[in-house]
Amino acid sequence: MSELAVVGGGVIGLSVAWRAAGRGHSVTVYDPTPGRGASWLAGGMLAPVTEAWPGEEDVLSLGEESLRRWPAFARELAEEGFDPGLSEKGTLVVGLDRADVEHLEILAGYLTSLGREVEVLTGREARRLEPGVGGSVRSGLSVPGDLAVDNRKLLVSLRKAAEQRGVQFVTETIVDVESVDADVVVIAAGAWSGRLHPALAGGVRPLKGEILRLRPRRGCLPPPERTVRAVVEGRPIYLVPRADGELVLGATQYEAGFDETVAARGVRELLEGAERVFPSIAEYELVEMAAGLRAASVDNLPFIGDLGDGVLAATGHHRNGLLLAPVTADAIVALLAGSELPPHAEAAHPRRLPSLKSTERV
Amino acid sequence: MSELAVVGGGVIGLSVAWRAAGRGHSVTVYDPTPGRGASWLAGGMLAPVTEAWPGEEDVLSLGEESLRRWPAFARELAEEGFDPGLSEKGTLVVGLDRADVEHLEILAGYLTSLGREVEVLTGREARRLEPGVGGSVRSGLSVPGDLAVDNRKLLVSLRKAAEQRGVQFVTETIVDVESVDADVVVIAAGAWSGRLHPALAGGVRPLKGEILRLRPRRGCLPPPERTVRAVVEGRPIYLVPRADGELVLGATQYEAGFDETVAARGVRELLEGAERVFPSIAEYELVEMAAGLRAASVDNLPFIGDLGDGVLAATGHHRNGLLLAPVTADAIVALLAGSELPPHAEAAHPRRLPSLKSTERV
Repeated sequence: MSELAVVGGGVIGLSVAWRAAGRGHSVTVYDPTPGRGASWLAGGMLAPVTEAWPGEEDVLSLGEESLRRWPAFARELAEEGFDPGLSEKGTLVVGLDRADVEHLEILAGYLTSLGREVEVLTGREARRLEPGVGGSVRSGLSVPGDLAVDNRKLLVSLRKAAEQRGVQFVTETIVDVESVDADVVVIAAGAWSGRLHPALAGGVRPLKGEILRLRPRRGCLPPPERTVRAVVEGRPIYLVPRADGELVLGATQYEAGFDETVAARGVRELLEGAERVFPSIAEYELVEMAAGLRAASVDNLPFIGDLGDGVLAATGHHRNGLLLAPVTADAIVALLAGSELPPHAEAAHPRRLPSLKSTERV
Repeated sequence: MSELAVVGGGVIGLSVAWRAAGRGHSVTVYDPTPGRGASWLAGGMLAPVTEAWPGEEDVLSLGEESLRRWPAFARELAEEGFDPGLSEKGTLVVGLDRADVEHLEILAGYLTSLGREVEVLTGREARRLEPGVGGSVRSGLSVPGDLAVDNRKLLVSLRKAAEQRGVQFVTETIVDVESVDADVVVIAAGAWSGRLHPALAGGVRPLKGEILRLRPRRGCLPPPERTVRAVVEGRPIYLVPRADGELVLGATQYEAGFDETVAARGVRELLEGAERVFPSIAEYELVEMAAGLRAASVDNLPFIGDLGDGVLAATGHHRNGLLLAPVTADAIVALLAGSELPPHAEAAHPRRLPSLKSTERV
């Protein structure tokens, strides 16, 4: 079995390491702060459809494939003693204006065509489901099958499970994959992946996002039971409840290079939007604010596969790192075993990277 | 010289301790976290007039008296090696609507009658003075004589200067003044003072406020040079620049008992208001959010004076603790020397406390 180096200890790197170690590889993860980065700041929704953008069929089908793998993935972790906190409470998407009503109906039709259970709701029905939903909510869509995971619990679980399988951790920053001594190197460095390999330099860019964590103060209405999503003034927001009572409110999305500072506007916009959807959040304690960098690609698909010279890509997961962790880890493990990329992951092949494309032409 | 115990190490307690030690008293300050509390979270404006509410003449004249003492107070600290960071850049009060225009004219008349230099400005003139002021600002009032102090620098300076004068610090929470071994006890415990003495229990209550600290990100317009104040949708806000480039944005004001958690609404309201007044703050980094408790009294005047049995009050300073520190410390030192309360501090005598009033009647 090969010596495997994984550069990046976010949800993708840890999942790859854990799975690869389970197949007998000798794995080392390189990350100055494993278990942190964008994965630490995520909401944890595992909801490919309500996350998908129109026309992103490849993103959607990869997400659906990964969603199917999530329960077994979580169970396997739990069986090893590290429960990742999978929630099956579903999602409530709410609409605030007339355009939203139409959008939710289209989404409902689409979900139904995929065989998913959905229910279109009036504003009143949405409030019956989640009493904290505000009076300005006019429509709703209940998606009971949607999953969510406690991203922080997951990261801690993955790291411990990986260590239990013998994965080594080196808390160093890798700036050049050539310097890593291994048979195969997997680049799973999120937004920083472009700095590690010339082919990824033009393919992965940082996409900044602010995210907040809140907690009900005494006398406040409790958080919603389900994930609640909405688009407020063109900006998508989500509220994801955690089992410990915390409520994650995310996320802004804009280009700002590698800037990871929390901008005032981001915080204001998130709070303003959330108050429209779930008014009592105004009285919640704001316990944490942070900004992270998603690894975005032009087509919103990740890069999973061979970059040549013993280097594999597992990056560019955009807003979908947590969702796509199982399918990515499985694909990398298949490649390590000498198999081809599975058909459902074909669209994520790095051959669509501009630099690799031009090489093919030559 | 007497043994003096000061309960509370905020700006009032530290000022009293420093000054009393300078007169030869043997002083001990009791505070679990000296130099923190509400003083740590303040904006640091020393602006009695733009802070005064209509009809609060006693508050105003006490404030004016203290303001006159501030330059010497700061100089004395600086001469001992601990510069408190006094700024003389002045205040720009801005108005957003027609009612504000009128309000600023009344304020200008009042300030002129007090012999203070003021200038009434149009919105355009206000923007000439502070280029970051937003387009929705319609009027302004420049008050060049207003002072501001870097509250954190001041607290550190006062503590060091007090230590240099031999003041002892005991980092314990006092719950009963009876337990303190001293000739005289000064209660300077801010919002918690009511828990230390029955007479103060009905006189001092906590008044919560959120306050934020921001810093320009790369490419942002720099902070204003002056303190900028406004009332946005009935809520007063201030932006106070610090010499190190930080901008303090405060403050909300509401009753919430002893709750010191940062509420989402407070953060949202401050950011929203600040964006109206100084739009580029939206791109600033939000580096700190906090909530503190002012020690409010019914008439907004502090309690400075004798509570009987060797206990003196120096509390209830509401939003004016930093401003009133010199005048309070001087009054307490006068009392310790056997003098009467100075005439300008008479209105702050604790004899107006309900419980002491009824005692007098008996």
